[in-house]
Amino acid sequence: MTTPIAYLGPVGTHAEWATLHYAQWLQQSTGGEVQLQPYPSIAQTLRAAAQGEVVWAVAPVENSVEGSVAVTLDMLWQLDQLQIQQALVLPIAHALISTAPDLAAITVVYSHPQALAQCQIWLETHLPQAKLVPTNSTAEALQRLETHTAAIASQRAAQLYQRPILAFPINDYPDNCTRFWVVGLQPSPGGSHSSLAFSMRQNIPGALVQPLQVFAQQGINLSRIESRPTKRSLGDYLFFLDLEANLLLPEAAPLLDQLARNTETLKLLGSYDIQVITAAASEALAIDLAAMT
Amino acid sequence: MTTPIAYLGPVGTHAEWATLHYAQWLQQSTGGEVQLQPYPSIAQTLRAAAQGEVVWAVAPVENSVEGSVAVTLDMLWQLDQLQIQQALVLPIAHALISTAPDLAAITVVYSHPQALAQCQIWLETHLPQAKLVPTNSTAEALQRLETHTAAIASQRAAQLYQRPILAFPINDYPDNCTRFWVVGLQPSPGGSHSSLAFSMRQNIPGALVQPLQVFAQQGINLSRIESRPTKRSLGDYLFFLDLEANLLLPEAAPLLDQLARNTETLKLLGSYDIQVITAAASEALAIDLAAMT
Repeated sequence: MTTPIAYLGPVGTHAEWATLHYAQWLQQSTGGEVQLQPYPSIAQTLRAAAQGEVVWAVAPVENSVEGSVAVTLDMLWQLDQLQIQQALVLPIAHALISTAPDLAAITVVYSHPQALAQCQIWLETHLPQAKLVPTNSTAEALQRLETHTAAIASQRAAQLYQRPILAFPINDYPDNCTRFWVVGLQPSPGGSHSSLAFSMRQNIPGALVQPLQVFAQQGINLSRIESRPTKRSLGDYLFFLDLEANLLLPEAAPLLDQLARNTETLKLLGSYDIQVITAAASEALAIDLAAMT
Repeated sequence: MTTPIAYLGPVGTHAEWATLHYAQWLQQSTGGEVQLQPYPSIAQTLRAAAQGEVVWAVAPVENSVEGSVAVTLDMLWQLDQLQIQQALVLPIAHALISTAPDLAAITVVYSHPQALAQCQIWLETHLPQAKLVPTNSTAEALQRLETHTAAIASQRAAQLYQRPILAFPINDYPDNCTRFWVVGLQPSPGGSHSSLAFSMRQNIPGALVQPLQVFAQQGINLSRIESRPTKRSLGDYLFFLDLEANLLLPEAAPLLDQLARNTETLKLLGSYDIQVITAAASEALAIDLAAMT
């Protein structure tokens, strides 16, 4: 049986790289066949999973420099049947890819806005003259390469599209990494971390304190809190929380009940383990893939 | 004396429109001359204010549909001498601008990623065939217009660039509005709202509960909480809070002291009033400006 997995394409994006790591893990743990399916937007990858077109979708949630990926949080709130299966933390290194003879010849740099932002200081220092042009993905930036232009994308993308790397790594922060969630219609497996989202009944002083106290009283660490607009009106928010606990365990039920009383709508997005991908694991996968082609 | 004000240009952006409203308010309250200066990025408008190239910078902070503008928060943390002078809430209505005879002829839609996101449902319903291409601003989208393409921008932009409007309004949520901050090196005036940002010493359970409780105990409403990565490592955050109180009043000093003890670095970004711009005020300004040209 082949398991279809959706990701933000085309081939060569960081999302594809995260998906290849997940596919490797799936093949090793279940032995099944996996098929990667690129989609043109993050929203479409998540909708494909919600509608059963694919079994899993791999979507970026958060980058260590640029912060949350808003569309992923918004879609998970809307498509509330999706459950998180696993988190993947992927190291991100950006390359400047160009056929120009040197940096001085480059007048335009294409890339995804997140990648441009992650290389902002490098670009201001080394290419102050260049115009920065946003694209839908880092791989799409490569497809637009012409004379006197450059793209910011991964080393793998440079290899796939057979374009030379002029500088690497060019990200401003060496510890740049992105967290992805693997989501699907199957029940969440339970694991070291849980994620949930809620809206609030009213904007009274301390309204947010009550739900947070519920966890503090149990000694549960909150690893992230993120607010997103409900889109109803300015000042009306949803909150997304990541916690270091398995909320699928029976003993967590009273805590969830208490939380439900302190919120308007509460959605448990899943409880799952985190797989941290090391640079060495990434290199090993690159060698495996090169051997296969 | 002419007061220079920086905004995200070129002319015709929503940021320019917010700045024109602020300029009108300044002229009416101080009688001085104002000069609007466009910059190619939000980061550059804020840097211009921090370096004294301009007196004020007007920067978007938050949209009711798309949420926070991360770069504005990140820059205010870095350029910590900037203080908020005023908030402006501007209604946002998007127009589909094109020289194509009808919707069926459109194959590409250009706009700023935030504007594309705010019209997502409309685009999927009316232009499912069109490719969405991000640009640096809504006004830049108009500059790229060719046959068979469209741009999403304001009515004012269509007028300035003399291009026809094919559909209006096309934003998915009618109550779409964006909040801007006017920032500068002068001390904050004090007003109904205050904004602050802090980093946390440690990630212990309930660490965030303590600072929030400080406000809850005083009956001060928290109108927004936003987390941003410190960029040091994944899972390490800054928090941005908006409060309904004037923290420049002497009686707020003990509260700020208490907050300082519960946080690592605490920065008061300012205390200011909010000017909500009505659709009628916007129309009146448009008529005034048309009369001047």
